[in-house]
Amino acid sequence: MTNNINIRTKARTEFIDITSEIEKLLDESGIKSGICFLYVPHTTAGITINEGADPSVVSDIQRTLSKLIPNNLNYSHMEGNSDAHIKSTVVGASKTVIIDDGKLLLGTWQSIFFCEFDGPRHRRVLVKLINDGV
Amino acid sequence: MTNNINIRTKARTEFIDITSEIEKLLDESGIKSGICFLYVPHTTAGITINEGADPSVVSDIQRTLSKLIPNNLNYSHMEGNSDAHIKSTVVGASKTVIIDDGKLLLGTWQSIFFCEFDGPRHRRVLVKLINDGV
Amino acid sequence: MTNNINIRTKARTEFIDITSEIEKLLDESGIKSGICFLYVPHTTAGITINEGADPSVVSDIQRTLSKLIPNNLNYSHMEGNSDAHIKSTVVGASKTVIIDDGKLLLGTWQSIFFCEFDGPRHRRVLVKLINDGV
Repeated sequence: MTNNINIRTKARTEFIDITSEIEKLLDESGIKSGICFLYVPHTTAGITINEGADPSVVSDIQRTLSKLIPNNLNYSHMEGNSDAHIKSTVVGASKTVIIDDGKLLLGTWQSIFFCEFDGPRHRRVLVKLINDGV
Repeated sequence: MTNNINIRTKARTEFIDITSEIEKLLDESGIKSGICFLYVPHTTAGITINEGADPSVVSDIQRTLSKLIPNNLNYSHMEGNSDAHIKSTVVGASKTVIIDDGKLLLGTWQSIFFCEFDGPRHRRVLVKLINDGV
Repeated sequence: MTNNINIRTKARTEFIDITSEIEKLLDESGIKSGICFLYVPHTTAGITINEGADPSVVSDIQRTLSKLIPNNLNYSHMEGNSDAHIKSTVVGASKTVIIDDGKLLLGTWQSIFFCEFDGPRHRRVLVKLINDGV
């Protein structure tokens, strides 16, 4: 079964910590060992795993990506959001996390972030949990 | 079983939409629920998922990556394609897409692109479809 | 079962080829067909697949990433390693490689690299091998 996490972003660029929603889905599944597949079905958003303790980390990531890939270059695509498409390709739309002993094997400082690059919008993250039967 | 999609690129930099080839492999497999693993066995190419409707999106991505990672920097690697290797690391060689109800769970605007950064060449994308038995 | 590869990095920025350690784990597992999931549980490191034959390729990648994402920008995060967090998001913490005929389906020139961006440190790469039973 594929689960949906629904997200309402509030700014053009915003990273939203979705770790606890994913952990809740994992708890409900009862899976002890397997893989968690995360997927963003949008072309101007992404998903990343990075530090959740200090919010200045994700603000530095957002600011530096916007400096490298500015909104106002001379792009061909006429919708004014080419920067968001490019960031989506750089950050990526699919990630996998290992499940062991009923938990996501995240590092001590890792959180999972939905990355909005062209908000505010309604967004979704797809979560598929696979049991490897061990 | 691992499938191969064979690609003949025609330019140094080129994004080629391979969504329909992957969908054909999925149809032939009969898998209803699972994961589609995509892998590029090359070090100067990549794979990305982004907008397929307006071709100016992928041309903006290619142009901006080439601006950030130009071909003529003072690189150590003597084959003249360090830029292509760096783009390969930034875009990535492996992606996963969720399969549900016999279909790839792509978003409305998403297509899957093979990314050539050092063509023209003969290239391959490996596709492995796994059935999660649900 | 999830395996750990332990790594001792020696410089602030360093790419370490871990292909043979992963191949050893695969040999020991006896798995003939499946997926190899690679995961870095750190927020200032990453994993990439790129050329292993000529070491100047990974040094060009490291140098160009450091040029694009310098250590001395005016970052908010006060630990002096925002550049390493940003590189971690760009390179990524999770990759998947297909297993066929008891081997990783790497391309001729591909090696798997742990990417240190804030060393020297003790690090780990998590490796989970899943048998697809075919």
